[in-house]
Amino acid sequence: MQSFELDKTDLQRVKQALEGDEENLKSLLSEYHASEIAILFENIPQESRERIIHILPAEIASEVLSEMDAEIHPEKILENLHPEKRSEILEELDYDDATDIISQLPEHKKEELLGEMDEEDATQIRNLLTFPEDTAGGIMNTEVIKVNLGLTKMQAIDEIIRQSEEIEEFYTINVVNDNNQLQGIVSLKDIIKAKYTIHISELVNHEFVYVKAQTDQEEVARLISQYNLTTIPVVDDEMHLLGRITFDDVIDVMEAENTEDILKISGVSEDEELSGNWKEAVKSRLPWLVINLATAFLAASVTWNFKSTIERLVVLSGYMTIIAGMGGNAATQALAVTVRRISLNDLSDRQAYQTILKEITVGVINGAANGFIVFLVAIFYNSNPMLGLVVFLAMTGNLFIAGIAGSTIPLLLKRVGIDPAIASSIIITTFTDVFGFLLILGLASKLLL
Amino acid sequence: MQSFELDKTDLQRVKQALEGDEENLKSLLSEYHASEIAILFENIPQESRERIIHILPAEIASEVLSEMDAEIHPEKILENLHPEKRSEILEELDYDDATDIISQLPEHKKEELLGEMDEEDATQIRNLLTFPEDTAGGIMNTEVIKVNLGLTKMQAIDEIIRQSEEIEEFYTINVVNDNNQLQGIVSLKDIIKAKYTIHISELVNHEFVYVKAQTDQEEVARLISQYNLTTIPVVDDEMHLLGRITFDDVIDVMEAENTEDILKISGVSEDEELSGNWKEAVKSRLPWLVINLATAFLAASVTWNFKSTIERLVVLSGYMTIIAGMGGNAATQALAVTVRRISLNDLSDRQAYQTILKEITVGVINGAANGFIVFLVAIFYNSNPMLGLVVFLAMTGNLFIAGIAGSTIPLLLKRVGIDPAIASSIIITTFTDVFGFLLILGLASKLLL
Repeated sequence: MQSFELDKTDLQRVKQALEGDEENLKSLLSEYHASEIAILFENIPQESRERIIHILPAEIASEVLSEMDAEIHPEKILENLHPEKRSEILEELDYDDATDIISQLPEHKKEELLGEMDEEDATQIRNLLTFPEDTAGGIMNTEVIKVNLGLTKMQAIDEIIRQSEEIEEFYTINVVNDNNQLQGIVSLKDIIKAKYTIHISELVNHEFVYVKAQTDQEEVARLISQYNLTTIPVVDDEMHLLGRITFDDVIDVMEAENTEDILKISGVSEDEELSGNWKEAVKSRLPWLVINLATAFLAASVTWNFKSTIERLVVLSGYMTIIAGMGGNAATQALAVTVRRISLNDLSDRQAYQTILKEITVGVINGAANGFIVFLVAIFYNSNPMLGLVVFLAMTGNLFIAGIAGSTIPLLLKRVGIDPAIASSIIITTFTDVFGFLLILGLASKLLL
Repeated sequence: MQSFELDKTDLQRVKQALEGDEENLKSLLSEYHASEIAILFENIPQESRERIIHILPAEIASEVLSEMDAEIHPEKILENLHPEKRSEILEELDYDDATDIISQLPEHKKEELLGEMDEEDATQIRNLLTFPEDTAGGIMNTEVIKVNLGLTKMQAIDEIIRQSEEIEEFYTINVVNDNNQLQGIVSLKDIIKAKYTIHISELVNHEFVYVKAQTDQEEVARLISQYNLTTIPVVDDEMHLLGRITFDDVIDVMEAENTEDILKISGVSEDEELSGNWKEAVKSRLPWLVINLATAFLAASVTWNFKSTIERLVVLSGYMTIIAGMGGNAATQALAVTVRRISLNDLSDRQAYQTILKEITVGVINGAANGFIVFLVAIFYNSNPMLGLVVFLAMTGNLFIAGIAGSTIPLLLKRVGIDPAIASSIIITTFTDVFGFLLILGLASKLLL
C-alpha cells in the first residue's frame, strides 16, 4: 500500500459500483482503507455516502465517520441512518470522535441519539460534551491505559493486555494511585525490560508533561510538538486522570489553526468552511469588505483634498496607484513574516524591537531601490526630474511606513491579546494607501506646482 | 512540568548564571528540558550558546542541538566546539539529526567532522547526506527496530530489548526477511499478547504503509496524517529497509510547509528565514517588489491613457482607488480560500469547476453590495447619479473579475504543476488594478463625458 493516491479511476469504480448491486459494492469497498473512503466521500452525493455507511461493517463505518472532514458533516449521515445500525456504529466510535460528531447535532437530536446508547457510553459522551470544543477536554479521548502504582511487573502486563482489548493504539502507560490520580508514566518497553520482581512504583517516570482539561488546544499542540510526545495525559485540577490526547489529534488541530491563519491574514472570517457554499462565503467576507470600503474612502478623500494638484498634473494619478500599491505589497510581506514568526514562537521584547528595526531597514532599502526605478521613468518618460524626485521620496517613504505598519501592528495586537493574524492585509493596506497618497500629493503640491 | 512556559524570569536567571561560575550554571541548566534550553538559545548570544553546550553532558547537549531551530545554526556551535566534546556529542546524536546539522557546513568542514567520527557512524552519515533534504531519505532516521520473520515470540522480545538499548523511542517493529527486505510490521503489544510458541511470521501485519527514499517529504507528511501513523518505514526500490520517519519529524515538516504557504501567498520568497537579518529579507523580497512594480506600471498606464477623462472629472481618481483596492482585497480572499483548499486536498475537476462558480457568485454579490454603497455616496456626496451608476457597475465588474482571478489562477497553476501559493496577492492584484481602472475609466468616458 505504498504512497497510496486516490485517483479518478477509484472514484469512477466506486460510482459505477454504486449503481450496481450490493454485493459488488461491498467487495469493492473492502479494498479501501477507512480513511480512503472518507476522502472518496468528498466527491459523491449525500445519498451515496449514507448508502455506503449503511453497507459497511460497523467497525469500518465508524472509522470512516471519524476520519471524514467535518465540513462534509458526518453527523448528517448518522442522523439519517437506521437506529439499529446507528447504535452499532456509535458503540464502535471512540468517545472523543463520537462526541465531536454528536456535538454538531441540534439539541433534541443529541438527546435522541444518546438515549439509544447504553447508559455508560452515554454518560461518558454527555460528560465530554461539557468541555469547550477547542480545549484539551474537548479533544481528548477518555479511553486510556492505566496501571496502579502498587502492581508488580507481571500484574501490570496482565492489566495492560486486558485493557488493550478495548484500546487499539497506545504509546505510553499512565500510572495512577488508588484515587485515580496521575503519578507518572511508564513505557511498555521499560516494563518488559524490567526484572520479574520489580514494582511499577520503581519504574514510573515522574517527570512528564500533562495538561489540564481547560488548556487551549493550541497550547496542547505546542507542547506535543515541542516535547515530541505521542500522547499527553489530561487531568482535572486534583490530578485525576481524565483522558489522553494523541499526536494525530494534534496534527488535525495544527491544520485547522494554519487554515485559520491564512484566512485571517487575507481578510476572510476564520469560520468560513473552505468547501462551504457561496452564501456562507458572502456572509464571511462581506463584513470585511465593507470595513475595507470605509477605510478606502479615507484614502480616496486624500485624493479629493488634493483635487487641484491632480487636475494640474494628471500624470500623478498613475504614480499614485504605483506608490500606494507597492506600499501595500511591501506591508503584506512584512506582515506575513511577522505573523508567522509570532505564531511559531512568542517574541521577547528584545526580539520584537529587533523585528521592527529590521522591517524598517528593509522597507527603506526596498523603497529606495524601487524609488530609483520610478525616478528613472519620470526622467526619461515624463522628462520631469522634479517629478522624479517626488516619486522617489514618496516610494521610499511609503515603504518605510509599510515596514513599520507590517511589523508593529501584529506585535501590538499580540501584546494586547488579540490574534495578530487579524491584522489582515485589509487593515494594513489602508495605512499604505493613505500615507502613499499623502506623500506623493503633498510632495507634489510643494515641489511641483 | 505542566504547560511549561519559558518566561522572562527563566531567561534572566540563565543570563545571570552565565556571568557566574560554572557549577552554578550547571545546576541551573539541569532544571531545564533540552527542548527548553533550545528555546532559551534564541535569546542569548552565540558565545553563551557555545559555553552552555560545552558545559552540558553530551547526551543533553546533543538533544539541545537537534531541537534547536535551524535558523539559529546549530552547525556553527558544533564547528567552534572542542573536537573532543564534539565527538562525544556527535556520537550521541541520532543519525538523521547529525546529518541535518552536518549538511549545513561547508564541504571541507563536513569532511573534517566526519573524519573525527568512528568509521561506522561516518559511513551512515555520508550515506544519508546523499539523499535530497526534502525527501523521505533526507528526513529519515536509520536506527530502526527490526526482527526476522523466523524468530519465535521469546527470541523476538530478547532481540527488541537488545536493540532498544540504542533506540530511545519506538512505536512499531519492522519485520524483515534474511535479505533485510521489509515484510511487514508488528506492534510490541501484539507480540506480548501472543502465546509463547508463536512465530513472528504468524503475527506480522502485511498491510502497512511505507515510502521509498525518494518520496517527497510533503507526501510523507500527508500519509502520516491521513493514516494516523506514529512511524512510516522507508525502503529502497528492492524493499530493503533503510530507516523510519516518525510523526514528530512530520510535525516539523508541516510547520515548515505552512510557513512557506503563508510567505508565498504574501509575495515573500519561500526560503526567507523568519528570523533572518535585513540583508536576507531584502534579497528575498526585492525581486517580487520589482516584478510588482512592472505590473503596477501596467495599471498606471491605463490611467495615463485616460488622462483627459481624469482631467475633466478629477473626482474619479478617488473612486479609482476604491474600486481597484476593493478588487484586490476580494481577490485575496478568494485566493486564500482556494490555495488553502488545494493544499489540504487535491480538487477533482468537478470540485474545481464548482469552486470557480462559487467564487464568481460571491464576487458578483459582494460587488453589487459594495457597489450599492458607493452608488449612494456618489448620489448624496457628489450629487451625480450617473457617476453613481458608473461606480456601481465598475465595483460589481471588478469583484466579478476578482472572483475569477482568485480561484482560476491557483487552480490553473496546480494543473500545470506549479505551487498555487505562488499566485500571490502580488500577481492577483495586478488583474484587479488593471481591470478596475479600465472599468471605471472606460465607463466614465462613455457615460459621463
